[in-house]
Amino acid sequence: MTLFADLLSTVFERRYERWTRKGVTDTRPFEELTVDLMGAAGEVSGVAVARTILERFASADDAEKLAFFRHLAENMTITPTAVRSALDAYETGQTKSSYRAFMAAAEPPRQEMIRRLNQVPGATRALVAMRADLLRLGRGEASLEALDLDFRHLFASWFNRGFLVLRPINWESPAHILEKIIAYEAVHAIDSWNDLRRRLEPADRRCFAFFHPAMPDEPLIFVEVALTNGVPGSIQSLLAEDRAPLMAEDADTATFYSISNCQAGLASISFGNSLIKQVAADLALELGGLKTFVTLSPIPGLAKWLQAGHDFNDPEKLRALAASYLTAAKRPDGLPLDPVARFHLGNGAEVFRIHADADLSEKGLKQSKGVMVNYLYDLERVSRNHERFATSHEIAMSSEIRSLSASAEKLGI
Amino acid sequence: MTLFADLLSTVFERRYERWTRKGVTDTRPFEELTVDLMGAAGEVSGVAVARTILERFASADDAEKLAFFRHLAENMTITPTAVRSALDAYETGQTKSSYRAFMAAAEPPRQEMIRRLNQVPGATRALVAMRADLLRLGRGEASLEALDLDFRHLFASWFNRGFLVLRPINWESPAHILEKIIAYEAVHAIDSWNDLRRRLEPADRRCFAFFHPAMPDEPLIFVEVALTNGVPGSIQSLLAEDRAPLMAEDADTATFYSISNCQAGLASISFGNSLIKQVAADLALELGGLKTFVTLSPIPGLAKWLQAGHDFNDPEKLRALAASYLTAAKRPDGLPLDPVARFHLGNGAEVFRIHADADLSEKGLKQSKGVMVNYLYDLERVSRNHERFATSHEIAMSSEIRSLSASAEKLGI
Amino acid sequence: MTLFADLLSTVFERRYERWTRKGVTDTRPFEELTVDLMGAAGEVSGVAVARTILERFASADDAEKLAFFRHLAENMTITPTAVRSALDAYETGQTKSSYRAFMAAAEPPRQEMIRRLNQVPGATRALVAMRADLLRLGRGEASLEALDLDFRHLFASWFNRGFLVLRPINWESPAHILEKIIAYEAVHAIDSWNDLRRRLEPADRRCFAFFHPAMPDEPLIFVEVALTNGVPGSIQSLLAEDRAPLMAEDADTATFYSISNCQAGLASISFGNSLIKQVAADLALELGGLKTFVTLSPIPGLAKWLQAGHDFNDPEKLRALAASYLTAAKRPDGLPLDPVARFHLGNGAEVFRIHADADLSEKGLKQSKGVMVNYLYDLERVSRNHERFATSHEIAMSSEIRSLSASAEKLGI
Amino acid sequence: MTLFADLLSTVFERRYERWTRKGVTDTRPFEELTVDLMGAAGEVSGVAVARTILERFASADDAEKLAFFRHLAENMTITPTAVRSALDAYETGQTKSSYRAFMAAAEPPRQEMIRRLNQVPGATRALVAMRADLLRLGRGEASLEALDLDFRHLFASWFNRGFLVLRPINWESPAHILEKIIAYEAVHAIDSWNDLRRRLEPADRRCFAFFHPAMPDEPLIFVEVALTNGVPGSIQSLLAEDRAPLMAEDADTATFYSISNCQAGLASISFGNSLIKQVAADLALELGGLKTFVTLSPIPGLAKWLQAGHDFNDPEKLRALAASYLTAAKRPDGLPLDPVARFHLGNGAEVFRIHADADLSEKGLKQSKGVMVNYLYDLERVSRNHERFATSHEIAMSSEIRSLSASAEKLGI
Repeated sequence: MTLFADLLSTVFERRYERWTRKGVTDTRPFEELTVDLMGAAGEVSGVAVARTILERFASADDAEKLAFFRHLAENMTITPTAVRSALDAYETGQTKSSYRAFMAAAEPPRQEMIRRLNQVPGATRALVAMRADLLRLGRGEASLEALDLDFRHLFASWFNRGFLVLRPINWESPAHILEKIIAYEAVHAIDSWNDLRRRLEPADRRCFAFFHPAMPDEPLIFVEVALTNGVPGSIQSLLAEDRAPLMAEDADTATFYSISNCQAGLASISFGNSLIKQVAADLALELGGLKTFVTLSPIPGLAKWLQAGHDFNDPEKLRALAASYLTAAKRPDGLPLDPVARFHLGNGAEVFRIHADADLSEKGLKQSKGVMVNYLYDLERVSRNHERFATSHEIAMSSEIRSLSASAEKLGI
Repeated sequence: MTLFADLLSTVFERRYERWTRKGVTDTRPFEELTVDLMGAAGEVSGVAVARTILERFASADDAEKLAFFRHLAENMTITPTAVRSALDAYETGQTKSSYRAFMAAAEPPRQEMIRRLNQVPGATRALVAMRADLLRLGRGEASLEALDLDFRHLFASWFNRGFLVLRPINWESPAHILEKIIAYEAVHAIDSWNDLRRRLEPADRRCFAFFHPAMPDEPLIFVEVALTNGVPGSIQSLLAEDRAPLMAEDADTATFYSISNCQAGLASISFGNSLIKQVAADLALELGGLKTFVTLSPIPGLAKWLQAGHDFNDPEKLRALAASYLTAAKRPDGLPLDPVARFHLGNGAEVFRIHADADLSEKGLKQSKGVMVNYLYDLERVSRNHERFATSHEIAMSSEIRSLSASAEKLGI
Repeated sequence: MTLFADLLSTVFERRYERWTRKGVTDTRPFEELTVDLMGAAGEVSGVAVARTILERFASADDAEKLAFFRHLAENMTITPTAVRSALDAYETGQTKSSYRAFMAAAEPPRQEMIRRLNQVPGATRALVAMRADLLRLGRGEASLEALDLDFRHLFASWFNRGFLVLRPINWESPAHILEKIIAYEAVHAIDSWNDLRRRLEPADRRCFAFFHPAMPDEPLIFVEVALTNGVPGSIQSLLAEDRAPLMAEDADTATFYSISNCQAGLASISFGNSLIKQVAADLALELGGLKTFVTLSPIPGLAKWLQAGHDFNDPEKLRALAASYLTAAKRPDGLPLDPVARFHLGNGAEVFRIHADADLSEKGLKQSKGVMVNYLYDLERVSRNHERFATSHEIAMSSEIRSLSASAEKLGI
Repeated sequence: MTLFADLLSTVFERRYERWTRKGVTDTRPFEELTVDLMGAAGEVSGVAVARTILERFASADDAEKLAFFRHLAENMTITPTAVRSALDAYETGQTKSSYRAFMAAAEPPRQEMIRRLNQVPGATRALVAMRADLLRLGRGEASLEALDLDFRHLFASWFNRGFLVLRPINWESPAHILEKIIAYEAVHAIDSWNDLRRRLEPADRRCFAFFHPAMPDEPLIFVEVALTNGVPGSIQSLLAEDRAPLMAEDADTATFYSISNCQAGLASISFGNSLIKQVAADLALELGGLKTFVTLSPIPGLAKWLQAGHDFNDPEKLRALAASYLTAAKRPDGLPLDPVARFHLGNGAEVFRIHADADLSEKGLKQSKGVMVNYLYDLERVSRNHERFATSHEIAMSSEIRSLSASAEKLGI
């Protein structure tokens, strides 16, 4: 990562910083600026205008931002009549030029505008932040939600797996990256630099993140891994301050115990599946002793799903209830109720083991009565599991989980 | 560049090489493979299928490639009825979901297929090569030319200026990059490593290339620059083997004497304008003495345009004819006949000086009777020039060129 | 620094770690091992023996270490009779071989032993740590103090200025380097990562360290710099949490407010003078606005020197006393009593200004009643100042300091 | 290497270039300059003087250089009477200060001068070049040969194995490094960039060099390796233009077929032994299939040793003669007559196989009638072989070689 950041910062970020320092002197309204950017000169000389728009947006208040978004939503969207006539022409004669005309009509001008904004060094980060604003301000407003689909469409193309770089995060990583790891950790909070260090420095701890070359200082998503002997059954023991680290070479299991998205502006652009599989593949290559790849995951919806009458003091009953919740509780669309289960099962993992008293933190007790689950990534079965889940919502599980579920059913819980 | 290549090669290319070595064992037809890639499992587990497609394509013969392209052209294009009904629904109720449905219908499935192919490490380079094949094989076949528009649309997004990295190319650059510079030089051929060295190593010579992070070993476009005192009037003196180099700090002029695109598969994705302006800006920042930024350019269409009756032995007459050709000879669409003129004038440059006996190479004599031209990039006027050229085809020129043209007119030549 | 650490860690440190993990199986006494290392096989196959010695030493207790040092001191020193006869032979016939024989006799075998130990990857750091042990354990024991002179002689050659690399330390530096900065700061303690960040991240703060390529994870010495407008008069205002940072370009003064040696094992190998001058030169090159280079320094010996009768409540009197102390209080050898004064005056700096209430920390009040001093590095005068100080102990000072001293004298204080 | 060069060039070389450009204005004689450098100011402010000396030396003619060396030889050597009295004092009382005084007297001042010269950025390279001049100009002049021992002593310390960095050289290495490989190849000449490429780019070819951090653009020594199946018997087949490369993973043998020292100024500082063993260890780690490490070496002294009466047309007789030459022909000091044999046997290798018609180049035929030899590096036996060779000149050889030698003896040849 460090090389990377170093190289690209030089190239991109320094210039970026430079323009953020200068005041913006062009005070024309956004409407005029966007016309300018899209006009004849825009393709060739548009960088200055693009810079002005980005900078003005960055310092705008919410009302101004909303006005800007509404301008894009209303004035830079598709024109159905134009689309229809281009489509008619294309149907009549399927030529290069009729197809080109259709493509031009069917794509709203704001997509090209976003691409032109992106010509400015450092713009990608600014555009991701812009979408975070849009998601925040546009909720429930149909035309803004539609506008967001254009951002999302472009970002899915720009942040294609093929453009991402997987980098290890460790105690030799730059401090300004590490402070983002502390800030973005969403599962088990990191409460100090010492806590961070305990998760990065020991020989049996690893962390990996995806980066995009145009945002080298910003992790997109990261995963924390513990190398263990056997499948761990509680987060307390995994993160115990006084534990004795293993030699990495002696571990037989890689446990993914935390995975966090970092960029609000990249919501719905999915990286987690690729990240887990890439990290599993890389670790398997590096450490021949690793045979098992599991998660140690929260069950965020469990407590809410449990009913008042349940006995929460019997760990066995809790485990059976959790098995039942994970494998049988469904949304109307047939997918699992639990969001973390949806994610891992959607990736082709299987429900492997369930542990009571596994997360005794305030948050753990509150959301799942302390219960946690291991999802198993069996690289041989992941593809088949995924396909069955995608086509028939079939949930893969170990025999242990199958028994637990059955016992829950028998008990009528 | 070296850091970059080093880093990213490690990440991407090595893996890429690995898969190209293994034989491909999946021998299903391309049709089935693309169905698989686009199916339920494709988004999550599609990397293996994508790899198979890319590898199979790389080793296919032209007939198989053509069959693959026709499959994309015919079976993975838009369905006009589906677009129309999605458009109708959207017009009736402009909601997030009706817009999403329209977007899905209006984009041909092959675009998503190309994005999924790109998930494979090293795929971007393979896809650029695929488009080079498409351009070569699809010429004149309407549905393949339409298919090419989808490649071009995606590549314009992926190779957006904001994602490109400008790197100096010098005698400390990696040999495998330098041999590409030798191979891709399209204006004044580099005939040996010693010739290359004379263009890179002296203190008054510079070369810069754009790279894309996903293709770190492949320059996209490069420009060769000579730092000079005054505006140079011939390529012979510029490249003379025995010339005495200047100290860079002592130069007042940066002369862009060669600019070459490197990737056939990126045809029509324009980088040259950005490259020239970025290099000019960077050089101006580094070397305070630089006041003038010009090209020393060929006039590839001149000889063809000249008529038999013209007297080619009078250098003054030749210069006047060249001025006339560059400023008055137009295509039906009103743009200059000369392709190099179109490029530089389109960037906002102006026709500055014309020199006879300026390129005495076989090629130079053949294409332009040895005449060359300087285009001036005056950073203060570039934007206005560009706009006038774009809106009214007005050609910017120096008073010297204006006089030359006028004299040509007077002479009735 | 990050590139550097990254590169060289790969090369050296990883291997180093590897050998420290394996148990040592060769349990022969140090005496035997050193004989082996110095014997016929040592030059070519000595790496394994060298590794064993270093590893055994690293895990030895103080008694064993002392025994090892005494072995070197007694059995691997020069043999005066051998030196004398080699000298006689050389005097008789000054040939290449008589000179070589003299060199061999005049250098104690332990120097060659230390060089052979250094063949092991990672050994340089281990040898620096070994000398730290020697300094600690050998104090007052003449033969061990002599032994230390050999370590010091070799280290002065190995850590020659020409081999050191100056690297900026900033908020993008690796965390494992930054934690060493926190640990080694010897002047104004850094009490947290936030405190560190305040010294590294703002645009008007800089930090630089010298590294040696064979110890890329270990800063040797570092200096903290504040870019200011005018010469600062107190450490409180300089480090105030709520101060508003300057733009670096707007600063006219670079203030060196803390300089710390990091390696006990490199005691008496002087880096500070080179570091200050190199940093001053680099900053001057980068920031054209910088006109003044000063320190804001403690006066560690002031409080001890002051007498009971002095009135410490009058800041003016305190300043005069400090001026008197810095410029007139001398050791028997004629050099200033104050160690920080000796260092900066020895570098060619001059006593520039004195401030009362300038360091109100517990340490500052205790050691100097809160008084601090600016030493000025005037690059034009540094060489002359240094020479006068070196040859005649003449102390350079500003007219303000001269007046203060004079007033102190008049007051009889 | 590229990272390294990049980083350190930035740090060192650029500055170096800068000073070489400025004219030297200080025209005092070398004698005065060295007095200045060694004087009171030298330790602290000596960099400017050191720079002047280095630059003046670089542009001096041979007569001036010789005068400079004689100045060092005569005026900056040890003073026997001073050494003797320091030695007497030390013998009387072995204290720290008497030992320090002895060290000071026993080391000639020119050693400290060389260390002070090395403070200048880029100086290490200049000092290595200075020693190359000394070796060239000082031959046969006793006091200059003695002076050289001081350079050599310092360089042995500076270029200690622990400070060297092993870097792969490949087709991605910087051109300015590669051109040095072409220039320095001393065994089998590289006649073009294409020839170089054939030795670097194929999957079954490797090249490695040692670098010193203070001379990052200068390889010190490099070795070329062919990965083969079985032990190769001729250089023609090894370097054949049309051979089909192996996959590296499929090779069972690493053949070191060329090893070249690059720096005349580092003569007698031995790197070859470390290089071969390090490269063998690294390759063994990377490629598990490698079981055998051999050389394919010239026999430079063979032709000269053969007598007129020998029949050079019978390959078997030639092989027997070569075996006899390599194992039985000795210098007066008991070491092998052949210099390459001395080197490899001294490293602990054994004479393994001998091939006729193995080097049919003009040079190969001339120096050894086309015969070549494999030396085997058996890592298990290397240490024992070396020790026996070092202590009793015993030559390790395979049974094949033993038979060949015996047959030669029987034939009385």
